[in-house]
Amino acid sequence: MSTVKPSAKAEENPRVKAVFDDIRATRKTDFINNFWRYLAFDPPLLEELWREVKAVMATPSALDPLTKEMIYVAVSVTNACRYCAHSHTAAARAKGMTDEMYADLMRVIGTASKTNALLNGLQVPVDDVFEAETS
Amino acid sequence: MSTVKPSAKAEENPRVKAVFDDIRATRKTDFINNFWRYLAFDPPLLEELWREVKAVMATPSALDPLTKEMIYVAVSVTNACRYCAHSHTAAARAKGMTDEMYADLMRVIGTASKTNALLNGLQVPVDDVFEAETS
Amino acid sequence: MSTVKPSAKAEENPRVKAVFDDIRATRKTDFINNFWRYLAFDPPLLEELWREVKAVMATPSALDPLTKEMIYVAVSVTNACRYCAHSHTAAARAKGMTDEMYADLMRVIGTASKTNALLNGLQVPVDDVFEAETS
Amino acid sequence: MSTVKPSAKAEENPRVKAVFDDIRATRKTDFINNFWRYLAFDPPLLEELWREVKAVMATPSALDPLTKEMIYVAVSVTNACRYCAHSHTAAARAKGMTDEMYADLMRVIGTASKTNALLNGLQVPVDDVFEAETS
Amino acid sequence: MSTVKPSAKAEENPRVKAVFDDIRATRKTDFINNFWRYLAFDPPLLEELWREVKAVMATPSALDPLTKEMIYVAVSVTNACRYCAHSHTAAARAKGMTDEMYADLMRVIGTASKTNALLNGLQVPVDDVFEAETS
Amino acid sequence: MSTVKPSAKAEENPRVKAVFDDIRATRKTDFINNFWRYLAFDPPLLEELWREVKAVMATPSALDPLTKEMIYVAVSVTNACRYCAHSHTAAARAKGMTDEMYADLMRVIGTASKTNALLNGLQVPVDDVFEAETS
Repeated sequence: MSTVKPSAKAEENPRVKAVFDDIRATRKTDFINNFWRYLAFDPPLLEELWREVKAVMATPSALDPLTKEMIYVAVSVTNACRYCAHSHTAAARAKGMTDEMYADLMRVIGTASKTNALLNGLQVPVDDVFEAETS
Repeated sequence: MSTVKPSAKAEENPRVKAVFDDIRATRKTDFINNFWRYLAFDPPLLEELWREVKAVMATPSALDPLTKEMIYVAVSVTNACRYCAHSHTAAARAKGMTDEMYADLMRVIGTASKTNALLNGLQVPVDDVFEAETS
Repeated sequence: MSTVKPSAKAEENPRVKAVFDDIRATRKTDFINNFWRYLAFDPPLLEELWREVKAVMATPSALDPLTKEMIYVAVSVTNACRYCAHSHTAAARAKGMTDEMYADLMRVIGTASKTNALLNGLQVPVDDVFEAETS
Repeated sequence: MSTVKPSAKAEENPRVKAVFDDIRATRKTDFINNFWRYLAFDPPLLEELWREVKAVMATPSALDPLTKEMIYVAVSVTNACRYCAHSHTAAARAKGMTDEMYADLMRVIGTASKTNALLNGLQVPVDDVFEAETS
Repeated sequence: MSTVKPSAKAEENPRVKAVFDDIRATRKTDFINNFWRYLAFDPPLLEELWREVKAVMATPSALDPLTKEMIYVAVSVTNACRYCAHSHTAAARAKGMTDEMYADLMRVIGTASKTNALLNGLQVPVDDVFEAETS
Repeated sequence: MSTVKPSAKAEENPRVKAVFDDIRATRKTDFINNFWRYLAFDPPLLEELWREVKAVMATPSALDPLTKEMIYVAVSVTNACRYCAHSHTAAARAKGMTDEMYADLMRVIGTASKTNALLNGLQVPVDDVFEAETS
């Protein structure tokens, strides 16, 4: 059940086909997951999102790919995004996350969620020492 | 401004002093940040929290210390915890996070927040392929 | 699956029937969606909620009905409310939201979610110029 | 710093004065906290909110006043509402919440936040036994 | 559909069996709900979580068991945790929460969510009187 | 207090100067608000964010500029982003939002937040009629 109409004929639109082809080439697989298939209801939005996700997640950068996937899982879990929890946990496993690492990821997310709540409750003032200096 | 009374004399309570001493020994610094100082209003809660944070964040585990701090930042930012954003960003910098890594962390958090919102909006069904198999 | 018992006989309760009749008259349809059917487990709560939703959403006010539905969708998506994302997206479409407008709505929600995360991360101080003056 | 203009002359508006007078009578104090003072920028919104808060929080109901305040704190903390954490913690203390009870409240909020995150991460299916039966 | 593999043979692991036995003894029932069954993918995480939940929720403390369950529900609902809303509403009912109390709980959660949003919108400054004094 | 170092000399970097110049030209003002000044700690991130915000918010699209600003406020308030609540409320006012419209915006955000919480609590099943048809 979704709020947009998925279409089996999405790739008849050349803009959609171009994005799907780039997803397949970038990921080295024929599989296109539902997020992109449903986003095809609006080709410009599909193009923008894929360009961003490819740039952030599939391009070498200061953080390694597995660390980025685990950070993605952490945000998705905190935002209660069911789809994203599934897709990015699967992606993290595909990039080498073991069960032990996943348990550790959950442990950090759990403890962070707990202390976030306590600090939002106690409203403790931020220590001056945490201030970034002005350059 | 806070919802509990901090006390300059907290360490006169031996349970509080024992926790503060362990924080100092674990972190190799005399500095005790406000979170612990304010939690001292209830010594058992202080003990429980420190035991948990020490076990999760200051004990070798499947993920390295810097990765854990960045995951902590990701959760804290998503939960809009001002104190935690400050304290864990400072901790991540102390463990080696450069400006380039921080920008990359923010980039992943930002894109994850955006796609989380889109998927919570479109309500796309989870692909069967993301299901963990039963062992 | 729900946490309250829906009842096929809800309208045997005159308070419930009165609310359902007013929903039908206000919306010019016989259809009562599940939210109201399940809320009928507590007739006073049903009455209060319908009075509020009718006053806010089905009464002429400073904002037009479609704008109000799109704002409702934006809040519901951000709160990860699956039911509300479905019901208010459907309501917005019924009030004239096209696919292009929906894509634009998602685009704004997505970019707002992303910059919200960045600002909750960077903890940038609010510019003085944004302060509302005292009258 | 706020997004609306507070006014020192708010009570010159008779609708505002009527609400403020009822707040004073209901709470048996001359003090009007900022929430109501700032809401006075729109007298109808002020009236609606006060009517609702008075009905829910200052009227005898199935739950006792202190329990209701602690539930209010739990929601406010989870929503990262700084003002509400302060005002409702103060209200709960005024209704008898001791430091021990506050520590226990924080303990439950913390553990709930942690397990919420884990379940939003693991995406565990809901047990059939938790389903409310249909009446 | 979940992100970890549940196992029908989980109790062949003695650490898992010990936790499950303690859950059964503490709750005086043979039933083990899915949260614990799925957490068994990592026995240390299962042990830590059960120890915490048992200490916070199944041990006499300053707040009574039903109040703690309702606070748990309030946090879970605010965090949009589907599983937790189901499991802790069921637990609260088992501890005596009537339909009238549940409606009241929902009323407080609803009004708190609404005023939280308004205050996060208006950014009203916290009154000095809500500041906890320093001891 | 922030987690990055703002720099008074940011515009000595030509990439930063180019973005700031484009902000000034697009907005027809010399004023650069803090978000962009602090983002300058990482020029590529600054460029990406400005390109996105300009494309979404300062380019004609299916929704009018004021509607987009109010949707931005709705998301920002729900995410408890203090800075964004201030900056986008100011932007909406600059684009014509009156006090009456702002009160109505707050009213819709408030009622949506309340019903979101109730539906995340009651876990009401989504009506089949809300399903988007497949094209």
